Amino acid sequence: MSLIHSKSSEKGNGVIKVDKDYESFMKEWKIKNSVDAKDFLENFQVFFFDCDGVLWRGNELIEGAVEAIDKLIKKNKKVYFITNNSTKSRIALLEKFHKLGFEFITKEHIICTAYAIARYFVEKEEYNSGKKKIYVIGEKGICDELDACNLTWLGGHKDNEKKVIIKDDLEINVDKNVGAVVVAIDFNINYYKIQYAYLCINELGAEFIASNKDATANFTPNQKWAGTGSVVASVEAVSLKKPIVLGKPSLFMIENVLKSLKIENSKVVMIGDRLDTDISFAKNCKIKSVLVSSGVTDSNFYLNHNHLDIQPDYFMKSISELL
Amino acid sequence: MSLIHSKSSEKGNGVIKVDKDYESFMKEWKIKNSVDAKDFLENFQVFFFDCDGVLWRGNELIEGAVEAIDKLIKKNKKVYFITNNSTKSRIALLEKFHKLGFEFITKEHIICTAYAIARYFVEKEEYNSGKKKIYVIGEKGICDELDACNLTWLGGHKDNEKKVIIKDDLEINVDKNVGAVVVAIDFNINYYKIQYAYLCINELGAEFIASNKDATANFTPNQKWAGTGSVVASVEAVSLKKPIVLGKPSLFMIENVLKSLKIENSKVVMIGDRLDTDISFAKNCKIKSVLVSSGVTDSNFYLNHNHLDIQPDYFMKSISELL
Repeated sequence: MSLIHSKSSEKGNGVIKVDKDYESFMKEWKIKNSVDAKDFLENFQVFFFDCDGVLWRGNELIEGAVEAIDKLIKKNKKVYFITNNSTKSRIALLEKFHKLGFEFITKEHIICTAYAIARYFVEKEEYNSGKKKIYVIGEKGICDELDACNLTWLGGHKDNEKKVIIKDDLEINVDKNVGAVVVAIDFNINYYKIQYAYLCINELGAEFIASNKDATANFTPNQKWAGTGSVVASVEAVSLKKPIVLGKPSLFMIENVLKSLKIENSKVVMIGDRLDTDISFAKNCKIKSVLVSSGVTDSNFYLNHNHLDIQPDYFMKSISELL
Repeated sequence: MSLIHSKSSEKGNGVIKVDKDYESFMKEWKIKNSVDAKDFLENFQVFFFDCDGVLWRGNELIEGAVEAIDKLIKKNKKVYFITNNSTKSRIALLEKFHKLGFEFITKEHIICTAYAIARYFVEKEEYNSGKKKIYVIGEKGICDELDACNLTWLGGHKDNEKKVIIKDDLEINVDKNVGAVVVAIDFNINYYKIQYAYLCINELGAEFIASNKDATANFTPNQKWAGTGSVVASVEAVSLKKPIVLGKPSLFMIENVLKSLKIENSKVVMIGDRLDTDISFAKNCKIKSVLVSSGVTDSNFYLNHNHLDIQPDYFMKSISELL
C-alpha cells in the first residue's frame, strides 16, 4: 500500500466555505477562510462518500482516507460509499476496501452502480423469470452482479473480440429477447458492441440504461481516463435516445437508503470530487456537499471551468482535512 | 452488379413538393401532388448528390442511378457528388463509381470528407512542413488522402490492436507534436484511441476535427449502421469540446466549388437522404433540396420523426424519379 499526496498546488488547509459567487469563492479560498473541521463533523450524522478521487486513485490510497473513515465510524456517524465505478461488484469493492486498510467496512456500506443495475432488473418480473435478456456494454462488475441475481445477459466480455468487416451481405442479427441495453465503462468497447446496442434499442425497442455519464475517471493515480460518459455518448448519438441513468447524479442508488435512515437532510453530507456527478447528486438529494480537489476536479479545473452553475457548499483539499 | 428497389412501401411516383407544414405534407404525399420531373430538371443547372443511400447502398446500386446521372451529364448539367463517407479516398471512390457503371464521372466530380480533411491541413504550414502531426481515428480513406499530401499522421489502423489494461502504473504517453485529432467512422474504434484523442485534445490542446456527425450510415444494403456521429460523440463526451466539422452540413467541402461556379443559388439543388446532413447542408448553402427515401430517411422515419424543423423542398422515392 502506498500513500499519495494530493496533487493540488495550493497550500490552504481546513474546510473552506464556498459562496455561491465565483469571485467571492476565489477570495475566500485565497484568504483561507476555514471552517473548523470539528464543527463540521458535529453538524452531520450521515456521510456519503464517493470513492475514486476521494478515498483512492486507482489502487493508491489518498493520504488520511483510512484514518478519516475510521474516525467517523468511531464517532458513530453513518457512512456510505456511493460510487459510479461499475467495473467492480459490491463484493470486489469490499475486498478492495479491506485490502487498502478500511477494516470496519462491510458490504452494507457500499452502494455501487454494478449493484444498482442488477437491482433495477431484479425487480422486474420479465427479467427475473429469464424471459428478457440484458445486453451489456461494460466490465466484469456488472456481469458478476447480474449473475449473482440470476439475470440473463449477453455481450460484455464475450463480445470483446468481435470485429465488423463491412461487406454487402453482412448483417448483425440481434437476440430478439433482449429487453434492455446496459451501457457502462468498457475498456474493450468496439464497433460491434455499439452497433448491437443500436439495433436492440432502435429495432427491438430495448430500454437504454446507463451506469452514469462521467466524462472522465481516475482509473489510475497519474492520469485521467475517458469515463463512462464517452461510451454512453456513442450509443446516444447513434440511437438518438437518452438513457435512464442509475448512477449519480440520479437518486436511484440512494432512494432506499434515504427512506430507511429517516433523518433530516440537513444532517447528511456528500463528499466527492466531481461537480457534474457528486455535487449535482447532493443538490438532487437536497443535502450539503463538499468538493475535494484530490480527484478529477482539482482546484485549477474548478476555478477555470464553466461548471460553476453547480456549486459545492464546502471545499477541501482532500479527505485528510477531516482529521 | 445487382439492382435493388427502394424499400419504401409507398406507391407514389414523381417529385413531390413538400410544404413546410407536416399535415399538409402528409396530404400532399397521399394525393400524389407530383411536380413534373421535366420542369424540375429544367429549373436547375447544378446538381449536388449525396452518394450512400442516393446512388447506392453499400456496393449495390439504387435502381436508375446510373441512367439518371448519365441523363444529367448529357443535358450539360453540372454534377457533384458530396459525401460524408470518409472510408474511401477520392481515387477509391472514383474506382467505385466506374465499377458500378458511372462511366462519365471523373475525380473532379467527387468531393469527399477524406479529401476535405487533407485539404484542411495541407493549407497549414505547420502540418505541411511535418512539424505537426495528426492523430487519426478513422479508416483508410483518410490515411490515404493524408499520405497523398505528405502529411504526417499517427493512429488509424496502426492503433487497431491497442489494448488498455488498467493497472496503477499505466500511463499513455502521447506524441507531443500532435497538433490535431481527426475523428471519423472507425470500424476498429477502441478505448485506447478514445483515450489518446482525449489526451491530445485536453492535455496538448490539439485541434478537434470531425469528418461529420451522421448518426447512422448505409454501409451495407440491408442494415443501418452506427455512423461517424457515434465515434465523434465519444470524443466530445470525454473532452467536453465540440469539433470543427468538415463534412455536411458544414459548407467547408463546397466553398471553393460554389465560388468557382458563379451561379445563382436558385439554379442549384442538393439531393440527399439525410435531413440532418444533406437537407441541412442545402439550407446552409441557401439552395433547394430534395429528400430521397432510398437511404437512411425512409418515409416512415420522415413522417414519424421529430427532425421536422429541417424540411426539404422536394421529396422523391428515389433518384430514378428523375428519369
